[in-house]
Formats: sequence, structure tokens, C-alpha cells
Amino acid sequence: MDAISVIRAKRDGLALTPEQIDWVIDAYVRGEVADEQMSALAMAIFLNGMDRAEIARWTAAMIASGERMDFSKLPLPTTDKHSTGGVGDKITLPLAPLVAACGAAVPQLSGRGLGHSGGTLDKLESIPGWRASLSNDEMLDVLGSAGAVVCAAGEGLAPADRKLYALRDVTGTVESIPLIASSIMSKKIAEGTGALVLDVKVGSGAFMKTFADARELAETMVGLGTDHGVRTVALLTDMSTPLGLTAGNALEVRESVEVLAGGGPADVVELTLALAREMLDAAGLPDADPAAALADGSAMDRWRRMIAAQGGDPDAPSPTARETHTVVASRSGVLTGLDAYAVGVAAWRLGAGRARKEDPVQAAAGVELHAKPGDRVTAGAPLLTLHTDTPERFEPALAALAGDEAIRIAPSDAAEGLPGSGGSIVLDRVG
Amino acid sequence: MDAISVIRAKRDGLALTPEQIDWVIDAYVRGEVADEQMSALAMAIFLNGMDRAEIARWTAAMIASGERMDFSKLPLPTTDKHSTGGVGDKITLPLAPLVAACGAAVPQLSGRGLGHSGGTLDKLESIPGWRASLSNDEMLDVLGSAGAVVCAAGEGLAPADRKLYALRDVTGTVESIPLIASSIMSKKIAEGTGALVLDVKVGSGAFMKTFADARELAETMVGLGTDHGVRTVALLTDMSTPLGLTAGNALEVRESVEVLAGGGPADVVELTLALAREMLDAAGLPDADPAAALADGSAMDRWRRMIAAQGGDPDAPSPTARETHTVVASRSGVLTGLDAYAVGVAAWRLGAGRARKEDPVQAAAGVELHAKPGDRVTAGAPLLTLHTDTPERFEPALAALAGDEAIRIAPSDAAEGLPGSGGSIVLDRVG
Repeated sequence: MDAISVIRAKRDGLALTPEQIDWVIDAYVRGEVADEQMSALAMAIFLNGMDRAEIARWTAAMIASGERMDFSKLPLPTTDKHSTGGVGDKITLPLAPLVAACGAAVPQLSGRGLGHSGGTLDKLESIPGWRASLSNDEMLDVLGSAGAVVCAAGEGLAPADRKLYALRDVTGTVESIPLIASSIMSKKIAEGTGALVLDVKVGSGAFMKTFADARELAETMVGLGTDHGVRTVALLTDMSTPLGLTAGNALEVRESVEVLAGGGPADVVELTLALAREMLDAAGLPDADPAAALADGSAMDRWRRMIAAQGGDPDAPSPTARETHTVVASRSGVLTGLDAYAVGVAAWRLGAGRARKEDPVQAAAGVELHAKPGDRVTAGAPLLTLHTDTPERFEPALAALAGDEAIRIAPSDAAEGLPGSGGSIVLDRVG
Repeated sequence: MDAISVIRAKRDGLALTPEQIDWVIDAYVRGEVADEQMSALAMAIFLNGMDRAEIARWTAAMIASGERMDFSKLPLPTTDKHSTGGVGDKITLPLAPLVAACGAAVPQLSGRGLGHSGGTLDKLESIPGWRASLSNDEMLDVLGSAGAVVCAAGEGLAPADRKLYALRDVTGTVESIPLIASSIMSKKIAEGTGALVLDVKVGSGAFMKTFADARELAETMVGLGTDHGVRTVALLTDMSTPLGLTAGNALEVRESVEVLAGGGPADVVELTLALAREMLDAAGLPDADPAAALADGSAMDRWRRMIAAQGGDPDAPSPTARETHTVVASRSGVLTGLDAYAVGVAAWRLGAGRARKEDPVQAAAGVELHAKPGDRVTAGAPLLTLHTDTPERFEPALAALAGDEAIRIAPSDAAEGLPGSGGSIVLDRVG
């Protein structure tokens, strides 16, 4: 077995054999297959695809490259959620304590943001004192006391994926359904959850720009989870405009706490409840009532316990940016579009995200929305507020919002019948 | 400009811009573009292709990465030949002194063999004392005294190609027409020859297995040469069976000397004369008579001067292998096929070639043919003799010849009308 013959097979449009896949993943982790060989293979996979059997074996080989966690001794069923990433996607923050309040255990290993979409750990780190890195024992302690834990994945889970993900990031081989599906599912299966709900985003702010691609990704991942004994379902949800009214780390924590307090934007509440019901159903708790857990404060109680158990102060004042800049509506009418990708890039440029893994992020930077698509707006009234500690970032952030498609306002009479904020954010369900 | 945007453009089927090509080649040589990024780009080029304008710019950028030699002060026109590589292809050895004897200067920078096809420098190094590495001054001295010089290309010519070629070799991205054409032509144009004849091989022993691919490669390379002011033509020649009756270093030198002495196998003589006529015509010497230069000994005289000027002894006895093994015909009839690739692999395994750049080669190892396709053979009569210093190599070499397609013998009456040795080895001409 050698790297060149595996690369040539995929390059020439053949399906890789199970032996080729097992060998190439193992040899890559050991360093026998070089980065330049794996990147050529990744590009060949990008362009020639993999069939379901290849993706399943590829995923299994990445799981086998590291340890697999086991929560089977916990007294509660475990259930987890993974989002493919979007702008303003703070759902994990209210969702994990909410599901815990309804009787399931939520061990959520999360990542940091890269590029225009934010990372859950970056958001929680805007809470003074909160620590993302836990030992396995600490993780079990938090899970026991709060019912939910959100922390960084350890180095031992799917190291093949860790190495391959970093390589794909610099070689233009990210947006491939087989590679995305195997990357997500190898990590989630290695985490040892009993049930998994996938939030597959569709639209300008997501990896998957079309409904068909998102559905294919969802079906691929649900198949992989099911094959590995994890009860898996996927919701396809809209990411053409940001989720809620905030994109940025502390801004999103503040909005999440509003949801846990029984308020918050309608779309965030809707998606949080929809995902909670799926997670609880998959965990064998179909009669749980997450709406009641939001209303009666039990979800908020879990949140406070979860944050405090990781060193955070749930009562600390939210960090505030040194500078703000307000974008006003250029005309009166109906806001027909507020592009997720444009807002995501603006928030990133304001300091909420990072260009490289080692970059720091600003806790308070980001974009606050004063209107959502479907809302009536008046010329000169505030539409967005930009937040940053470093005002030289306003100009590049405003440039991201300057395109024709970023902010679309139609005269009221022309906007009749256009899609507004009235529709459901959940577009479809797979599983 | 960054590597990922260039990779993504080609990955998504776009033509690269001149600015993208210039930047990526320069940045790769400087180390700003990493090997794993260039290999992903090479795979995207392999699978999505490059148009003529892209290939031209890519070639120009590789030439510009290093020095360009200049023979314009020589009193004679310069003319060169390049073969895409085959089994038993010793043509450079008789050809360079022959063309010199007819009045042109032949500065031939050559390479070593890798895999099943041999390298000109390896062949000449089987002559005791002969040195492949010359300084630029030494090269001009040999060219002045013998009219022809065959030596190793210096490190300064097309360093981008040198680096990219080594990368393609380990990443399954060799057999791409845009990448092969730009690799060959960047080196040949940087060498500064005024005229160039390309011998593009077609068949099992060549990179190009089909006539259509070979023709496309030939047309691409002729276009590149012409665009850079080099008078360029290409012959498409048969590589379904080995050239001549030998494959191996010293064995091929011996056969080349037979040709220079006025003898030698018909196909080697035919191709040597055909290429000589093209080289002389392209050099502005259409009335030269290479057949006469073979017959009157003037080509042999140039050969002796050329070898001696590089430290070789033209009268030294040819090295002889310690062991030989004879393969006999399994039946009587007509030899209808003797596969070039199978013979090339056998010679390689006997020690004539190398698996890795740093491996040594055996001077005397190789395969000697006693019959060519079209010849009548008798059961039990010798068909091939295998030569090696290390007899444990016989078994793997024989395995290469064991396939159904390696040696094909038909009953005499069934072989009527089959292609034999009577046809011309030159299949087509481009330019």
C-alpha cells in the first residue's frame, strides 16, 4: 500500500477500498503519508467525490485514530447538538442548559470560530473567568452538577480529523460534502453521545448555499450516525440572514440569557425549542416540555450552574465595546434582505472572529441588528450598530455591508408578498 | 493574492489569471506557498485542466524562476531534441554527434531515469570515466571541440519546475498534459536552444498511452516553443515495443555505437535519421545529409571526441553483467507483440533503473531482445536475454514479463496481416 496508488485511484474516479482508506488515514496520522500527499487526495475527493460506503469507512477510520468517550455509566441519557455553523448562531448557549433542565445530559464539545462564522467557545469566553479547557474528570463533574457542559474537545478525539481539518483549511478543500460529513461525524461519534441532533444551515451565511447540498449533507450525516449506533436526526434551517439580533461574542451571550429569561428574538426561541424537542425525543424523553423549562426559570438555573462550574461569573456585567457606529436605513420601506454572510464578515472584521487560529478575539465586538427582514424601516432610522474596541475596523466592516445584496430595502408597496420574518426558520427534517 | 484563492479558482473550473500564475509560481519557489498547497493546486489542474493561455503563462513563469542560457554568440546554429521517454530510447547517443557532424551545435541537457524508462545520463555513465556534471565553461568547451555536449542540467535552470516535478512525483499528479508540457518546455526554453525537435512517444512504454493524448501534448509543446521564439517541431513515434534490441545502460551504449558505425537495428537508424533531418532543418541546414555522415564515419568521430572531452574512454570495453538468463519462445509462430512497458519494468528490476532518485544503477543490467514484433520465432529458441549483477533480480524481472500481454506469439497462419516490423516508427509530425 502506498500513498501514490491511493491518490491515483481517487484521481481516476475509482471508489477507494476499505483497506486503502484504513491505511491512508492511519499512515497520515503516523506521518508516513505527507501533508502534500493528503492534500492532493483531498482535492481529488473534492472533485471526484466519495460514495456512501467510502464516507462511512473514512469516518470510521478517523474515529479509530483516537480515543472514544463513553458516557454509558451516566444515570441520564446523553444527547448532543451540532450546527454546521452560521452567523449569530448562539443556540448552543440556551439549548444545552434547557435540555439539561428537561432531564437529559448534554456533553457538548465545541470549537472556536474561524472566518465569518463564530465559535461557541469564543462566545462563552466573553464571560469573565469562564474556562473552556477541562480534564475528562472535570467534564464529568460539570455534567453531574449542571446536567450540561460546553467545553473544548481534547486532543485525543479523532486526531486524524484534527490534522486533516487544519490541512483542508489552507488547501482550498473545505466545502466538500464527504469531507465535511466525515469530519463532523467522526468527532461527534468519538464524543460518545447516545443521541445527536444536527442543525444543518442553508444560505449565504452557511457552508451549504443551496437546499439540495444541505439536504445531501444532512442525509449523509444522519446515515453515518445511525450506522454507528447514535440516534441521529437533522433539521435544515435558514441561514440567509443572521440568527436573532446579534453577531459577536458578548452580544450573543446577552441575547442567550434573554432567551433563558423567557424573552429573546422569536427566531432564536423557535430554533432553540425545535432543537430541544428533537434532542429530548432522540434521548427517549418525548414528553419533556422545554417551553415550560424556559418559562419557569429551570433552564436559567442550569445555565448559572453550568457557567459557575467552569469558573465563570453568571452575574458579571457583559463587556461593552469602546466604540460604536450606527448604520441607518438609506430609504423608507420594508427590509427585504439582510445578508448573513455580509453581517458575518462585518462582525469578523470588527474583531469578533479571527483570520488565523492563533489570533485573539474581542469579547465585545460585533454587530447588533435593529430590524430583521420583513420589518418596516424609516429613512435615517438605525438599522445596525457596529461594536468594536478598535475603531479603525469600522471602515473594513462597513465595506462588507456596502454590496448591493447586503442590505435590501424595497418600497412598501413593492414588498407585498415577499418573504418576511413570518416564515418558520426550520425548513426541513431528515431522520 | 493568496494560495487558497488561486487553488479555489482552479478547483471551481475557472481559468487562472496571468497575475495568479506569476504569483503562485514565484511564491512557491520562495516557500510562501507550501508544498501541500501546490499539490492541491496540481491535482485541481490535473482534473480541471488549463487552457492554452494558462499553460503559456505557467511555462513563462517557470522559465522566469531561474536563469536562461544564451548560445547566440556561438558561430553555429543550435538545435536540440527532447524525448518524452520510453523503453530502449538511446536515440540521443547517436543523434547528438550525428547532427554535430552535419554542421549544427547540439547542447543537450539531459536527465536520469526514474521508474521504467531509462535516462540518457545513466547510459553514458556506463562508459568508464565519463562525467555528467559540467560547469557552463566546460560545457561550452565540449560544444566547441565536439559540436555536441550531453550533460546534466544545472540547478539554476527553471528551479520552479525542479521543485514542482519532485512534488508531482509523490502526489499522483504526473500524467497531466498541461503539467508535462510546461515542465518539458520550461527547461528546454531556459536552455537557450534556437531549434527544438520533440520526440513524443505513444504506447504502453510511454506516458501517453493514446495517439490523441500524444498529439495534444505535441501540439501544446510546439505552440509553447514557437511562442518563445524557438523553432519547434514534434514527431509522434511508436513506443508499443522497445526501441532497438536493448534496454539497459551499457547495452544501449553498445547499440548506439553500432548505429554510429553504420549498422544497428533498423528502427533505431530510422528514428535517428528522421530526428536528425528535423533538427537540421529547424537549424536552417535543410541540405545536410545525415545518412552520409553515418556512412562516412564523421558522426562516429564526433562521438569519440564528445565522450573523450567529458573524461570517457570511447575504446574502453563495455561492462558485462555477471549473470544472464535466457527467455525462450513458448511456441513457434510469429511474434505479434513484445510490450514496451513490460520490458521496461523488467530492465528496471534487473538494476538498469532506480525506484528513488538517490538509488544507484547497474551499468550492465538490462534486457537484450533476439526478436522484434513481426519476426518468426521457433519454440525453444532464445527470445530475450536478461542481464544483471544480482541474480535475485531475475525472479521479479521475469514476473514483469509473465503477463498475457507481455510476449504475444501467434501461429504463423493466424498472423497474416497483423502489424509487424515493416511499418514506420514515425506516426505523425506536428509543427
